[in-house]
Amino acid sequence: MKQEKISQLTTNRLSIYLRCLTELKGEGQASVSSEALADRFHLNSAQIRKDLAYFGEFGVRGVGYDIALLRDHIIKILGLDRSYNLAIIGAGRLGSALVDYEGLLRSSFHVKALFDVDPKKIGKKVGGITITDLKNFQSVVKKANIDVAVIAVPANAAPDVFEKIKKAGIRAVLNFAPVRLNADDEMRVRSLDVTSGLESLSYFLTERPQTGDKPKPAGKARKSAQ
Amino acid sequence: MKQEKISQLTTNRLSIYLRCLTELKGEGQASVSSEALADRFHLNSAQIRKDLAYFGEFGVRGVGYDIALLRDHIIKILGLDRSYNLAIIGAGRLGSALVDYEGLLRSSFHVKALFDVDPKKIGKKVGGITITDLKNFQSVVKKANIDVAVIAVPANAAPDVFEKIKKAGIRAVLNFAPVRLNADDEMRVRSLDVTSGLESLSYFLTERPQTGDKPKPAGKARKSAQ
Repeated sequence: MKQEKISQLTTNRLSIYLRCLTELKGEGQASVSSEALADRFHLNSAQIRKDLAYFGEFGVRGVGYDIALLRDHIIKILGLDRSYNLAIIGAGRLGSALVDYEGLLRSSFHVKALFDVDPKKIGKKVGGITITDLKNFQSVVKKANIDVAVIAVPANAAPDVFEKIKKAGIRAVLNFAPVRLNADDEMRVRSLDVTSGLESLSYFLTERPQTGDKPKPAGKARKSAQ
Repeated sequence: MKQEKISQLTTNRLSIYLRCLTELKGEGQASVSSEALADRFHLNSAQIRKDLAYFGEFGVRGVGYDIALLRDHIIKILGLDRSYNLAIIGAGRLGSALVDYEGLLRSSFHVKALFDVDPKKIGKKVGGITITDLKNFQSVVKKANIDVAVIAVPANAAPDVFEKIKKAGIRAVLNFAPVRLNADDEMRVRSLDVTSGLESLSYFLTERPQTGDKPKPAGKARKSAQ
């Protein structure tokens, strides 16, 4: 297996392939061609072949990919053959929602700590996890062997929280705060910004219809602050 | 302005450029070169030039891009010069968190309806929005002129909710349920999957360190179900 650096876009696609292969495996399928995989899940078959060729030979011409083998391999490439301990910072609605987000419950990622600064929240439990005072961040992170920090605090609090995470030596951050956090080379920040998800939808809603060539009417157009 | 179809990856990048330009504008800057933009926000300057050239000439050699002009243009391309009405389905922690997610509050997207099936929740208010019975979905969607539906229900409920959204004629969906929803050509589904965000971080955590050539030790390796 090549161990070269692959881009985040490729890891995103591998993550998608993994989900598809898991679904096919669950249905009892043994092998799948890049075309069938692309058709079924609305992917690009040439891209699939390119991505997977990069990691070695998994396909047999005329037969396709061995689903179980390929799935195990992607799990290894993505580092999902071990488990990761998460700390969530911010026990508001979003942070609390993440504690028992079902996608997480059946993943390699396990919430081990939940932090807040609000004295009314500290000591209470959310989904079996006790909310801890953020001032004990360093010691709790060390004790709980935290690998990944999840930022679920308001934007104005996020930079300070990010500094704490850095100091604690955590290298991976999932950020929900709508603010850009600049990581150095030793760290990786992945931002899940709800607004950018919506922005690519708004582009779609204003696209020209494929059947005509007039732009879509703007509808109830109003001036809005971006 | 060319009105050709651009890919979701491009709209994602435009969305990022928009955030950067908004930040620079806030600091009172008038122009920026692709190199300075790339340096400051850890982007790729060649990619910036390529993406922006596609939409026309905004840069002046030696001077750079006019920030206000370029920003306005990206807002138009992304269809953000109007506002969009959102309906959130699922008034659990996640759905409720979204109602007053601050990124949304200052965006072009406005939450106009929140639905649930739980009689204990229906009629209660979250952030000024009354939780409505999902069985009234069609009529409420019509009355409130909903453009975008946000799915924040458990994975097993998501396919039925998706059918309701389709029937109501909503063309854009932001999906938080960890399940794949297949849209036809008339619709666009954007999934924000927390787990895939984490999976690209796990790849980073298992990457070879750049200074050596031994793979990172697996740490507290445990077998985990994916």
